[in-house]
Amino acid sequence: MSSPETQAHDAVDLIRTKRDGGRLTGDQIRWLINAYTAGGVAEEQMSAMTMAVLLCGMDREEISHWTTAMINTGERMDFSSLRQADGSRRLTADKHSTGGVGDKITLPLAPLVASYGVPVPQLSGRGLGHTGGTLDKLESIPGWQAALSNQQVLDQLDSIGAVICAAGSGLAPADKKLYALRDVTGTVESIPMIAASIMSKKIAEGTDALVLDVKVGSGAFMKTAAEAAELARTMVALGTDVGVRTTALLTEMNTPLGKTAGNAVEVEESLEVLAGGGPEDVVELTVALAAEMLAGVGITDVDPAENLRNGKAMDTWRAMISAQQGDPDAALPKPKHEHVITAAESGTLSKLDAFAVGIAAWRLGAGRARKEDPVQAAAGVRIHAKPGDEVTAGTPLLTLQTDEAERIDRAEQALAEAVEITQQAAFSAPELISARITAQDL
Amino acid sequence: MSSPETQAHDAVDLIRTKRDGGRLTGDQIRWLINAYTAGGVAEEQMSAMTMAVLLCGMDREEISHWTTAMINTGERMDFSSLRQADGSRRLTADKHSTGGVGDKITLPLAPLVASYGVPVPQLSGRGLGHTGGTLDKLESIPGWQAALSNQQVLDQLDSIGAVICAAGSGLAPADKKLYALRDVTGTVESIPMIAASIMSKKIAEGTDALVLDVKVGSGAFMKTAAEAAELARTMVALGTDVGVRTTALLTEMNTPLGKTAGNAVEVEESLEVLAGGGPEDVVELTVALAAEMLAGVGITDVDPAENLRNGKAMDTWRAMISAQQGDPDAALPKPKHEHVITAAESGTLSKLDAFAVGIAAWRLGAGRARKEDPVQAAAGVRIHAKPGDEVTAGTPLLTLQTDEAERIDRAEQALAEAVEITQQAAFSAPELISARITAQDL
Repeated sequence: MSSPETQAHDAVDLIRTKRDGGRLTGDQIRWLINAYTAGGVAEEQMSAMTMAVLLCGMDREEISHWTTAMINTGERMDFSSLRQADGSRRLTADKHSTGGVGDKITLPLAPLVASYGVPVPQLSGRGLGHTGGTLDKLESIPGWQAALSNQQVLDQLDSIGAVICAAGSGLAPADKKLYALRDVTGTVESIPMIAASIMSKKIAEGTDALVLDVKVGSGAFMKTAAEAAELARTMVALGTDVGVRTTALLTEMNTPLGKTAGNAVEVEESLEVLAGGGPEDVVELTVALAAEMLAGVGITDVDPAENLRNGKAMDTWRAMISAQQGDPDAALPKPKHEHVITAAESGTLSKLDAFAVGIAAWRLGAGRARKEDPVQAAAGVRIHAKPGDEVTAGTPLLTLQTDEAERIDRAEQALAEAVEITQQAAFSAPELISARITAQDL
Repeated sequence: MSSPETQAHDAVDLIRTKRDGGRLTGDQIRWLINAYTAGGVAEEQMSAMTMAVLLCGMDREEISHWTTAMINTGERMDFSSLRQADGSRRLTADKHSTGGVGDKITLPLAPLVASYGVPVPQLSGRGLGHTGGTLDKLESIPGWQAALSNQQVLDQLDSIGAVICAAGSGLAPADKKLYALRDVTGTVESIPMIAASIMSKKIAEGTDALVLDVKVGSGAFMKTAAEAAELARTMVALGTDVGVRTTALLTEMNTPLGKTAGNAVEVEESLEVLAGGGPEDVVELTVALAAEMLAGVGITDVDPAENLRNGKAMDTWRAMISAQQGDPDAALPKPKHEHVITAAESGTLSKLDAFAVGIAAWRLGAGRARKEDPVQAAAGVRIHAKPGDEVTAGTPLLTLQTDEAERIDRAEQALAEAVEITQQAAFSAPELISARITAQDL
């Protein structure tokens, strides 16, 4: 038989094995991922495989092989040349969030951790759908550049410690191709493949320590705590198996994080946090994640809130923004149009739905429907009351911001069911951080 | 959004519905099959859907919509112009076998049923893999032509009653495209889709009555009686739902049918049956299927064995072959090489594996690996003893026939485990027909 036929036959054998509830070996998974990336396994074969994986699952070893195979289709970052004054290695620390509404934590977190001497290579993406993208937010700062060469990343890590930039296309190309396929074939919602996708990129980025912020709730990809915990455990296992010190926090995402959702508005809020202020929940999560990252590289004797209060984190932020051609002192863009939504009655705010606020910010122009679309720097939502706050009828709850007035109607529609106000005084908001998962919990 | 995106989105919604264990509506299935056939649903989307269907199933109504949708992508044959002398309609009867080794039943069956005045439009396919194709067998008759126009089919049904010819490509084109996809994506083994594939073609062929010969055993597609019964019930339901009088017999396929597997050798054996002789099992199954077809069009007062004995079925055969340019008196091709396999010991033959004999016949040149490959008319296997027969060490069990001597070794290898001989006298062969399934059994 000819070579393409033999390959097709092999692919069918592997699909049948997984479909019938069997395990794939490391060799089989390596062949599959390599052949798919090279075009030897057809898109329609890989989509049948991903559906079989979604419905039949993969065990820890299979997921590990799958992840490693995707990493090995591309380049790996190498930060081992970073050295302390005494010549010992400087270990790096990284954070990944599964995506939420108002989640600007990366912005204060990277300079905060770097202010303790720990390099933070934060390779990020752009937003798609209702969750914003870190690069989109930073691009609202006049002059700031997302694209750096690998050498520029290394130099900036060495000199400043913090880098937030665009992930290069050379990392795990198999994941990129596979994600595009899963997106159009109804095979995204598989915890093994989600975990492999995230971790293949994070491991290829070459970090020593990693903290995962796994969101759970209406505004998150994982809607239930059980799913979020399974995803967290799967990712912690993957990191641990390749020697990355990995922990995960499960955090609340039924309510937006902080008091802004958008681009420039989130930078503004991050600056408040770096100045020692800012919303309580944003500060709490920033400090908790910083503590995980610092512990991951062996630093357990500091209180990460300290460098927010004393301005050291802000100094690192300013250096980081300047190094990427941004002007840390420039005024941030203001929206052409604003629309205020007020409280319909007096009482205690008992619900502010994260998904609805995310959709509203997206429709206002803060996010994109397709990856080619532009975003508006000044678009977004300002939040004037959070669950647990007392509100009075007629006072502002939300301010909608956009450069295009015609977007306001549809944004307001998204918020129709987003707010609930109760007369019962005993309302208490849920815990922001509901669980911590480490290698010991597997 | 643009139209292709909207379509992709719709396809993803349907895939997710099925993946999550939901039901697809008639509208959704019609849209899916039509859009797939027209290219609006991509191959990789349809393969994810077929995997979801394979793993999550379809209920009777979904399978019915799926089948009807496939039929409606193409033309339908119409035999309603066939009339009795009194002007009433002549109802047609058809047979489908799920494929086995040595299954030449169509050859004597079509002329036998037609000899009772019932038109039999037997649109057939070619063989692929270890089961032979009816057209391949008939093409070993010098001059015989498989391709007829729709008008020629109608004329021959009117004048002679029996037609065995190639199915036109206009019938259920969706099925053709979908089967090619399932073949390379590990999604063939789904009873709902197998049933829909078979029945879409049979219903499009426009028959009034249909009998299904569902094989079960090593040489069949269905390896267990439970699977075969489920497939039979599903197909009987599909036929019944569209008004085709449909019954099914479950028949044994651990052992080859009759005493030949190949092309010309099977025609030769069919002629013995039409002459009132032939192997007992071939006669039994031919008569049983003929009785179902005759009953399906309301004829229950005849013994179908009669027209085998009195030569009327043979007369119809000769007319049918002549009408398609075949010479019923021409000598059939003889092989250039023969190789005899003898009994290793004396005793009772307790096993002659159908799958192994099918593979041997295929390797000798009787079948094809790809649909473009030619077949050898004279290649095949002659069987000298069947399970239950007494054999003596050194006497012939099988004769391998081929035009290419180098094929004999690999054919013999396929037979290494095919034969078992026991010293226990109490061996009894299983029933040929194990169950009969009608609309009353659903």
